[in-house]
Amino acid sequence: ELFVLTYGALVAQLCKDYEKDEDVNTCLDSMGYGIGVRLIDDFLAHSAVKKCRSYSETADTIAQVAFKMYLGVTPSVSCLSAAGNEFSLILDKNPLVDFVEELPAERASLCYSNLLCGVIRGALEMVHLAAEVSFLQDRLKGDAVTEIGITFLRKAED
Amino acid sequence: ELFVLTYGALVAQLCKDYEKDEDVNTCLDSMGYGIGVRLIDDFLAHSAVKKCRSYSETADTIAQVAFKMYLGVTPSVSCLSAAGNEFSLILDKNPLVDFVEELPAERASLCYSNLLCGVIRGALEMVHLAAEVSFLQDRLKGDAVTEIGITFLRKAED
Repeated sequence: ELFVLTYGALVAQLCKDYEKDEDVNTCLDSMGYGIGVRLIDDFLAHSAVKKCRSYSETADTIAQVAFKMYLGVTPSVSCLSAAGNEFSLILDKNPLVDFVEELPAERASLCYSNLLCGVIRGALEMVHLAAEVSFLQDRLKGDAVTEIGITFLRKAED
Repeated sequence: ELFVLTYGALVAQLCKDYEKDEDVNTCLDSMGYGIGVRLIDDFLAHSAVKKCRSYSETADTIAQVAFKMYLGVTPSVSCLSAAGNEFSLILDKNPLVDFVEELPAERASLCYSNLLCGVIRGALEMVHLAAEVSFLQDRLKGDAVTEIGITFLRKAED
């Protein structure tokens, strides 16, 4: 909870700093990227995961090992594309928003948890996987679920 | 570690926002206060602590229960005043600075972990204890230990 509240303070500070939601979102993503780049070492050191052999295995590992380890929740994973490079992580519960009732009307475009996208992107890049990561749905915005989309951009190397 | 890195991102953002270390310190303290005010409910709900009967018991509870619960470390506590209202929490290890090598030269007065002081102050206020909380020593500044001072300002009510 200390983490969740501290994250809330960070988002609030960025909302003070930037008038446009888009700028806050970009800033959260970019901070997250910097965090992911460093967090991957901790993840590899403390998880028992081995090299993933497919995008699908990678997405499962993010959901079942990384989310579990750092956020205490396990999103469900589904593949969105026939090409097998687009995945969706669906969170029934997003711990980051535990203390957030709803977004203020003037912050309707804020991706409150956007740091997570940056973290995933940064961590993946450190294992040589380029990806686009973004929120596809967000309960804070009235969607039925919270959904993070991950699109792998290149063929996985062996 | 996600928390520790996110905290680092928050401090870095504030250092961008405010030129003076004192302003960053004040901001961290005030953010912490807001967090403490909310965190106390979580603490009381999830810890089995009962009402503390003395300042000494309160200081011990902060160190042994609260720090353990939220930061995974247990500072040692000592009483600093004959009046029994000043305490010192000594942290051998401060998890918040895990990824910080040292403060940059131009940030020599930064109280990097100052959020913690605000959290303690805010949480204590919600149980009707006014206190001043500040860092007395900080390893990041070259001190031998990291030490947080807590001075209770009024007589404890029964």
